[in-house]
Amino acid sequence: MAFKIRAATKEDCKEIFRMITELAVFEKMPDQVKISHEELESSGFCENPLFGCLVAEVPEEHKSKEGFTVVGYGLYFYTYSTWRGRALHLEDLYVMPEFRGRGIGISILSKVAEVAKKMQCARLQLSVLNWNTPSRDFYAAKGAQDLTAAEGWHLIRFDGQSLDNLANDAPKD
Amino acid sequence: MAFKIRAATKEDCKEIFRMITELAVFEKMPDQVKISHEELESSGFCENPLFGCLVAEVPEEHKSKEGFTVVGYGLYFYTYSTWRGRALHLEDLYVMPEFRGRGIGISILSKVAEVAKKMQCARLQLSVLNWNTPSRDFYAAKGAQDLTAAEGWHLIRFDGQSLDNLANDAPKD
Repeated sequence: MAFKIRAATKEDCKEIFRMITELAVFEKMPDQVKISHEELESSGFCENPLFGCLVAEVPEEHKSKEGFTVVGYGLYFYTYSTWRGRALHLEDLYVMPEFRGRGIGISILSKVAEVAKKMQCARLQLSVLNWNTPSRDFYAAKGAQDLTAAEGWHLIRFDGQSLDNLANDAPKD
Repeated sequence: MAFKIRAATKEDCKEIFRMITELAVFEKMPDQVKISHEELESSGFCENPLFGCLVAEVPEEHKSKEGFTVVGYGLYFYTYSTWRGRALHLEDLYVMPEFRGRGIGISILSKVAEVAKKMQCARLQLSVLNWNTPSRDFYAAKGAQDLTAAEGWHLIRFDGQSLDNLANDAPKD
């Protein structure tokens, strides 16, 4: 099946938001999505965007059951390693279930890697859930290292009350 | 002991670079540091900086054995969650060994949390090595969640040859 990977535009944000919600359902955390497509528009399509995004598009004649032609996305941003400098983090990589097994996921990932190289990033990183074996196997087959398994890195989060408490404890200038 | 937490300036980059190297030695990966203080200057102190940094400074009379007055740092950047929007990632938090146990680490962390709140970030995240029990206990005591333990998130990395291979496989436009 023909498909195209292209940079997302502001007009794609409703479709990207739809797929963000689909991915959260897959990840068993659908209640976690607190943003909106308007938030994507203002954060991603402005003078200093907080993220970049690629979308996969199929021709009209191959649209999904529900009539969608934008069927996958990869959303990323730049980070900074004090060991290696600029890096790229792939926050989400998603292909709608009925379009899997056709090379769309690897094409998005490769295009994101191309962006990373173009921007002089030494690394492309992402997070994956340990029960998501198909994805973990897919990344491993492409030569990725699992840093949590190999080096023991754990992801730590402050939010809500714990973040407020920390900020309230900050020394006053 | 009196100390001050302040935003780093370009002139602090040599000191920050020294401490980045000290932290890498503590993390048992000293060979991983491939950047320089010049790289920190150009990436962090420009029109669109890749990171922000706070430093802890002690008065001249309390300088370290080697004569240093900049004795700790917290280096962070902004990320983007497709569930919650803008977030802050604390890449490094470090206090020189002879200055630990005096509240400098928590002061840096709190000041970074204050930056996060000011910038409307819903989360402050960081990564920690699983054998670094003092740090893990410290974050847990302050209310942080360990997402790797609680939800099973693993950190995955492509770099070097695996990143080149991915980029080379990208579909041509």
